[in-house]
Amino acid sequence: MSSIDEALAVIKRGVDELLPEEELVEKLRLGRPLRIKAGFDPTAPDLHLGHTVLINKLRQFQDLGHEVMFLIGDFTGKIGDPTGKSATRPPLTDEQIAQNARTYKEQVFKILDPARTRVVFNSEWMSRMSAADMIRIAGQYTVARMLERDDFTKRYRAEQPIAIHEFLYPLVQGYDSVAMEADVELGGTDQKFNLLMGRILQKHYGQAPQVILTMPILEGLDGVQKMSKSLGNYIGVNDAPGEMYTKLLSIPDQLLWRYFELLSFRPLAEVAEYRQAVDAGANPQEFKKLLAEEIITRFHNEEAARSAHKSAGNRVALGEIPENVPVVEVSLEGQPQLPIASVLRLAGLVKNGAAAKDVLGRGAVYVNGEQAAPDRQFVQGEDCVLQAGKKKIARVLITE
Amino acid sequence: MSSIDEALAVIKRGVDELLPEEELVEKLRLGRPLRIKAGFDPTAPDLHLGHTVLINKLRQFQDLGHEVMFLIGDFTGKIGDPTGKSATRPPLTDEQIAQNARTYKEQVFKILDPARTRVVFNSEWMSRMSAADMIRIAGQYTVARMLERDDFTKRYRAEQPIAIHEFLYPLVQGYDSVAMEADVELGGTDQKFNLLMGRILQKHYGQAPQVILTMPILEGLDGVQKMSKSLGNYIGVNDAPGEMYTKLLSIPDQLLWRYFELLSFRPLAEVAEYRQAVDAGANPQEFKKLLAEEIITRFHNEEAARSAHKSAGNRVALGEIPENVPVVEVSLEGQPQLPIASVLRLAGLVKNGAAAKDVLGRGAVYVNGEQAAPDRQFVQGEDCVLQAGKKKIARVLITE
Repeated sequence: MSSIDEALAVIKRGVDELLPEEELVEKLRLGRPLRIKAGFDPTAPDLHLGHTVLINKLRQFQDLGHEVMFLIGDFTGKIGDPTGKSATRPPLTDEQIAQNARTYKEQVFKILDPARTRVVFNSEWMSRMSAADMIRIAGQYTVARMLERDDFTKRYRAEQPIAIHEFLYPLVQGYDSVAMEADVELGGTDQKFNLLMGRILQKHYGQAPQVILTMPILEGLDGVQKMSKSLGNYIGVNDAPGEMYTKLLSIPDQLLWRYFELLSFRPLAEVAEYRQAVDAGANPQEFKKLLAEEIITRFHNEEAARSAHKSAGNRVALGEIPENVPVVEVSLEGQPQLPIASVLRLAGLVKNGAAAKDVLGRGAVYVNGEQAAPDRQFVQGEDCVLQAGKKKIARVLITE
Repeated sequence: MSSIDEALAVIKRGVDELLPEEELVEKLRLGRPLRIKAGFDPTAPDLHLGHTVLINKLRQFQDLGHEVMFLIGDFTGKIGDPTGKSATRPPLTDEQIAQNARTYKEQVFKILDPARTRVVFNSEWMSRMSAADMIRIAGQYTVARMLERDDFTKRYRAEQPIAIHEFLYPLVQGYDSVAMEADVELGGTDQKFNLLMGRILQKHYGQAPQVILTMPILEGLDGVQKMSKSLGNYIGVNDAPGEMYTKLLSIPDQLLWRYFELLSFRPLAEVAEYRQAVDAGANPQEFKKLLAEEIITRFHNEEAARSAHKSAGNRVALGEIPENVPVVEVSLEGQPQLPIASVLRLAGLVKNGAAAKDVLGRGAVYVNGEQAAPDRQFVQGEDCVLQAGKKKIARVLITE
């Protein structure tokens, strides 16, 4: 197998469509790092594993030596909803966009290599674009073909309004590929139409058109519906290790191989071996644990992955301080120090001394994310996050 | 009759639609000069009487004290055809637009009062508009409603391509009304959709929406089809007096009253009297002459109007030098001067001496637009336009 064939095998893993494959081969033959574009919403990112399917593919391109252009589509975000009909889409401020970009980086750099990632904002070129330029670009596509986009067709037939600016956004996305001189653009299957727009506009501007690559929509934990926050069948990239562990071990057996294909970086040959083993009678739970270990390592660390089974179901990560933890003051009442059992009780994390003894005995008490010894004492001025069992957590301030 | 009723009667003369009439009444009650908008193509103007129907209405507004905003839509002209499919619509240069504006002024100031006319160019505000602004404006209208515009409906049904920028142009035209704060916009009946767009955008921008007024399409000399250059049934505003005279006297009798309504400034009460007279047996040709006199006076002068019957049919105006006149050199061949009959023959304007004698005898020879005496002599260095009969014309240079 030539190295291009090898690269192609990695790129095609789990892909929905790759168009046109022969153009990708030509581009790979150029021997230079390709510019791999993927566009993201500028709204507050809160990624789940479904979103990472695409980001994993970007990482695979990086491992092959290519450069990821992580595009944040802030231009349209700054416009908000020009029809004025959606109160939930106010224009984003520069500050909000910068904050969201930081959050994106925190989340995606758990997968992507920062050294081969360029984060770009399309307002860079779009805010300089004139109405005349926008009109010229709009001249490159017809109303009838735009109405062929699946969602537009449905809305038009159902007599639901489509505002005219919605016809401009796919053109803006296409023009982004021109401005970025993208070689490849990745998107979900529902993005195929918009990705092809990039090809059309690049041709118009005399550029070699980008190859488009669509990734499938990941099924949620139920194995049936797509993974989504609103359906509750998701694993968030910020979920605690114990929660990730529990959720991944709960998936239907047949979903495991799909998850390996799209969420794991293990070679497909290895995955095939696991599958053969399960077919021969091995317990699939062992391989779910293997997948959980890889995922938890990616989003937390190796140690968290190793001990995740202990905190299975915990909604708070070891060593992580979730937001909105209630703050409780516990007074020493004149004493020089206070045993942990008393602090747990005074902070309202356990009902009584017996319950405190119980959680401590089970090793289920954490101070700032680290397992606490049952004889731990607290002194004045301590400020720490105290966790008892799966769900009880508080930030405790020890006062006089 | 109140003065507003009187104004309304003048405004409504010959109008196709006036929407909404009650809003116009309110605006007239404001007692200030209203801003009357009418938009014109930035391409080379070559107006015929059909175009002047609208301009006459503008003049009537001026006579009522209002201000005409003569809008030259140069913004879209500068873009040309962004689809690149029409080789006949190259982008116009600033110079071409300035030249076309001069030509417009020459032609329309034969009707409009320059003191109450403001010539504006929409590039003034549109060239400063950003793509983001264009997108915001496009959010104010839906695809379905835009497709309801008659020509779009037809093209969409016939599967003829409509480029997306064509959906932006009516929005640009509507935004012009916002930028100009138009009180009233005039257009042809085919412009109704675009005129209404101005109302929608003005409301969005918090302005009182403009009243729209559409003028009918004028029938051509045949009285059946619309007046148009390509159909050949037109009278150009630059036509020679004799040609205007001949054409106007050739129209079908029933068309005369329509022409009086839309092309004449004579009060309708007078026109009604003429009509009664004809109904009672008077010769309609007399009233055609009356109309011709008014039209020729408007586009030439009173003297031309008085003598037009003499040059009836002449395609070259008295005192006007048409474009593209063939240039012919006539040599004196050593003689000090040359009689006009010889010059006509040597310039190829007549076949022989007898023909020269004939046209001279009929008084049908003009030098620089003035009737020439049969004994006119030419000397070296003369450079003049020589016309023999209806169609023979040349620019003649007299050389040694």
